Amino acid sequence: MQPSGAAFPLATPGQERLLAATPSSPAAPTPERVPENALNTLASLVQDDLEACNQTIVARMESPVALIPALAAHIVAAGGKRLRPLLTLASARLCGYGAKPGETRHVRLAACVEFIHTATLLHDDVVDESALRRGLASANAVFGNKASVLVGDFLFARAFQLMVEDGSLAILAILSRAAATIAEGEVLQLITQNDLATDEARYLDVIRGKTAALFAAACQVGAVVAGRDQSVETALMQFGLDLGIAFQLVDDALDYAADQAQLGKTVGDDFREGKTTLPVLLAYHAGDAEERRFWERTIAESEQTPEDLPQAIALIERHRAIETTLARAGRFAASAQSALAGFPPSPLRDALLDAADYTLHRAR
Amino acid sequence: MQPSGAAFPLATPGQERLLAATPSSPAAPTPERVPENALNTLASLVQDDLEACNQTIVARMESPVALIPALAAHIVAAGGKRLRPLLTLASARLCGYGAKPGETRHVRLAACVEFIHTATLLHDDVVDESALRRGLASANAVFGNKASVLVGDFLFARAFQLMVEDGSLAILAILSRAAATIAEGEVLQLITQNDLATDEARYLDVIRGKTAALFAAACQVGAVVAGRDQSVETALMQFGLDLGIAFQLVDDALDYAADQAQLGKTVGDDFREGKTTLPVLLAYHAGDAEERRFWERTIAESEQTPEDLPQAIALIERHRAIETTLARAGRFAASAQSALAGFPPSPLRDALLDAADYTLHRAR
Repeated sequence: MQPSGAAFPLATPGQERLLAATPSSPAAPTPERVPENALNTLASLVQDDLEACNQTIVARMESPVALIPALAAHIVAAGGKRLRPLLTLASARLCGYGAKPGETRHVRLAACVEFIHTATLLHDDVVDESALRRGLASANAVFGNKASVLVGDFLFARAFQLMVEDGSLAILAILSRAAATIAEGEVLQLITQNDLATDEARYLDVIRGKTAALFAAACQVGAVVAGRDQSVETALMQFGLDLGIAFQLVDDALDYAADQAQLGKTVGDDFREGKTTLPVLLAYHAGDAEERRFWERTIAESEQTPEDLPQAIALIERHRAIETTLARAGRFAASAQSALAGFPPSPLRDALLDAADYTLHRAR
Repeated sequence: MQPSGAAFPLATPGQERLLAATPSSPAAPTPERVPENALNTLASLVQDDLEACNQTIVARMESPVALIPALAAHIVAAGGKRLRPLLTLASARLCGYGAKPGETRHVRLAACVEFIHTATLLHDDVVDESALRRGLASANAVFGNKASVLVGDFLFARAFQLMVEDGSLAILAILSRAAATIAEGEVLQLITQNDLATDEARYLDVIRGKTAALFAAACQVGAVVAGRDQSVETALMQFGLDLGIAFQLVDDALDYAADQAQLGKTVGDDFREGKTTLPVLLAYHAGDAEERRFWERTIAESEQTPEDLPQAIALIERHRAIETTLARAGRFAASAQSALAGFPPSPLRDALLDAADYTLHRAR
């Protein structure tokens, strides 16, 4: 079961080093230079492209089988942020593509990226038998497991149809590889679920696959569509990969953040599913014998009561596991930013740099 | 919800006419010219290709995430017949491709076709919440819903990676369109499940999407790889499409065939799932008021007891719904055969013609 490095061809040893960094390392987030609306700024810089992308998304999820656009809209409309297509649009623009008449390939490809993302969301909604037996069927209650799977399949196929219309085999290679890597990451997540022997390298494999691979591909596609050379392509791919890892680390931290709960956000989904995310792994390894027994019961054995989530949050706070997770996210965000060092200063480059900081400070 | 013809771009009005044919129409199967082992003959004619295809399948479902090849093998190995890749290999050979050194594209593309088929099988295994509540989780008990979905996603992505390696945008277009059509057909099947108002045209849409689209694409790919002109491509596509419809009609008949049950085969899966297949629709429409109430209770309302399947089979036999379904399958098989009329006689052409007849007489 142990994956080799080859499982996730986007991985670099440097990332393992980043993840292994201690929380006392000084690569802390820099909140003072983060505009509250970094993603809005980014979106406003590619506003016309983003509107065209939204139109493409709506137009191309059409099917005579009306349940398909109905269910797809349920997810595509709900998602909102359009972070991944935004990365494709901004990367293409950063590479000088999109200003001339007829330069619209990035719009369609951004829609592809969103379709792949939506397909994975729909498939992620699929509930396992064991979860159903524990009464956790809520996520997917409206349409049912099977419809989620099939509409996800449709969107995935449609994404490839759009890529074929675009006609670039290089881009088809990037996104089909990303799709395979996402599936590998998701399967690895399933394997590491409830397994407290999961180490941090394996956790990194999971988030690199399930989240960062598509961020990386989304950015890389922007460089390819602009016809930029390999070094530019690699820089943007690296930016997306590190940004995606930072994004997922923060997401995993927020799932145990008490202040999120106070804001009325849902916390504890990962806990209830027994996911071995970094906050849990850190608290488990730092805990005493009694604390370890708590994690073994709640995570490894999936035996939970309603009082367990507050206790999990308390243990995670006791061992500063949120701060440590966010500090590691900060190092990946900084690494993402350094990947853009070769680009000349511009409002778009600055917005991408700010987006990396924003990732660290977002509320979901 | 009513799909237009555009939903299934492979559809032709001729197929609707074939389906509407009455059982008294004389296009009956011709068992006397069917070798028992028609598929074996076909396989033996492309034996080296098929072995190479099997090797490609095993080699390319590899992943460092070991659960993926383990679960994929569970399905890929179990399937056995390799009917769809066989169609790609035979079509390519029929078009004169595959004999010269280096002519191996059809082998890799046949593996793509099998990966797409396996992905749909895995996703078809996904059990709905409602089914689980009725105790129908057996199909998928070994690995769980979620693993089936994710490994299916991996195989689907891997299929596209193989197509990208092949490098033909025309083939990528054919198979990505087929994948979208399969998903549309499966969603339509979900919509028509438990719905006795389903008419035969809609039933045809379902089986054309969920089954025949991939048969058609598998055959068409063989012509494309051989570089044959559009008329040859269309002929093979039509052969596959009609063959796939015949195949599924027979499959749907066999699910209620008492002699299958006597042979120890599973019958009644479709009945338990409330699928509105042609045998049910024919018996429902031919039935008296009491019989209709039976179908409404068991299919529309999903209220079944163990005694209901024998009763369903008895009603289907009373109205000769199996014979009618098989007669319609016979017309599609004959139509498939006529699509090959333009090819000069050869052992391979004869084996494909026999395969169409075999479809009508196979035990599953």
